[in-house]
Amino acid sequence: MNKAILVGNLGKDIEVRYTTEDLAITNLDLATTEKIKDNSQTEWHRIIAFGKLAEICGSLLKKGGLVYVEGKTRKRTWEQDGVPRHSAEIIAYKIIALGSGANLGVNKAIYIGRLGIDPEIRYTKDGLAVANFSLATNEKKGDGYETQWHRIVALGKLAESCQRYLEKGRQICIEGRLQTRAWKKDGITRYTTEVIASHMEMLDSKMADAGALENHMIPSASMETGSMGDIPF
Amino acid sequence: MNKAILVGNLGKDIEVRYTTEDLAITNLDLATTEKIKDNSQTEWHRIIAFGKLAEICGSLLKKGGLVYVEGKTRKRTWEQDGVPRHSAEIIAYKIIALGSGANLGVNKAIYIGRLGIDPEIRYTKDGLAVANFSLATNEKKGDGYETQWHRIVALGKLAESCQRYLEKGRQICIEGRLQTRAWKKDGITRYTTEVIASHMEMLDSKMADAGALENHMIPSASMETGSMGDIPF
Repeated sequence: MNKAILVGNLGKDIEVRYTTEDLAITNLDLATTEKIKDNSQTEWHRIIAFGKLAEICGSLLKKGGLVYVEGKTRKRTWEQDGVPRHSAEIIAYKIIALGSGANLGVNKAIYIGRLGIDPEIRYTKDGLAVANFSLATNEKKGDGYETQWHRIVALGKLAESCQRYLEKGRQICIEGRLQTRAWKKDGITRYTTEVIASHMEMLDSKMADAGALENHMIPSASMETGSMGDIPF
Repeated sequence: MNKAILVGNLGKDIEVRYTTEDLAITNLDLATTEKIKDNSQTEWHRIIAFGKLAEICGSLLKKGGLVYVEGKTRKRTWEQDGVPRHSAEIIAYKIIALGSGANLGVNKAIYIGRLGIDPEIRYTKDGLAVANFSLATNEKKGDGYETQWHRIVALGKLAESCQRYLEKGRQICIEGRLQTRAWKKDGITRYTTEVIASHMEMLDSKMADAGALENHMIPSASMETGSMGDIPF
């Protein structure tokens, strides 16, 4: 897992340029501010967005705007005048405009833990695979541990991968969104909170193919704002 | 918010050095691997840990080990032979040894949304402040939005800050851990899932003092592994 999560303000307006293959690219300079006692510390981040995400950034974001960015960190090395130079960037795959008037938000859960059962898979009437399993996360508490159990739901291809590769006791990393649904039993409404997984990584791979430590779903680029009714996606 | 979350393998053993002020420092070289179609892409990250966290890394981590790192990204600029040089690092505040035999995990939720009510505060018999409120996160779904409601619990100083600064409708970023507790009503066991907040940031600050956009709790450095019974904290 290689994840950067930033919330900060844009240092300049967005310029979109195009490669010879007609791929849109844009750079965002984002300032995140942290308050440590009475001092504010600002850190500048260079963010790169590609394709449709870059184009939507160009049409919707402005200097000074408050923005959520999720992506992966990447280092680049090149030569200038015979001297190796380095830079660090964040390749964005999700950007959300925040601040006054913004409607959209973030709903993210990240767990690392062990499966309590083998995943159970079933299929909906439409043929969609649905896998359910429980995951225990341990955290230090005093001299011992505190265990929390989480309900995980995986859909589609990710569900099939979970059934194929996972079993009780395996250590995995799960990323997803939290969802609470209401259901009735004996006339009483009850609520269940689950994580709808978007990404799964196996951590204690015992399989010969260490490549099984793969990302079963690469999040697709998505730009979201509260005021984009006219954008066709 | 400036957050990096990495899960990867250590490229070398840990060496701890000390500053003239006797502060321990260590560098970790961590490789994260991502599978894109049939190719593996490895990214190397330079991580810095200070103080007790550095010392525990030195005594417990080994080359090749699987590790979770949470921290903030930082860029440094310095001169060498009259040429400005740049590097990017991650300042770690949490490191967990993963892999076979490891007990500890990660239980993290990150939300950006708006408060559904003014925070309600009460005090336990021991005088601990407890604030409760609901938070709505909107995500894009088809042409519209999907709203999820989350129950947030803040304790101590963070609870008092929530009561003082927050109100219905405000946009905030919350980070915390998920906890499910059982309770009985009419002899029936019910379950409620809540986020115990560790960190809160106000995003749509309308207050004159923009500095109120502060981190109300800076997570303290913590190293956690499944095999550290002898470490005194």
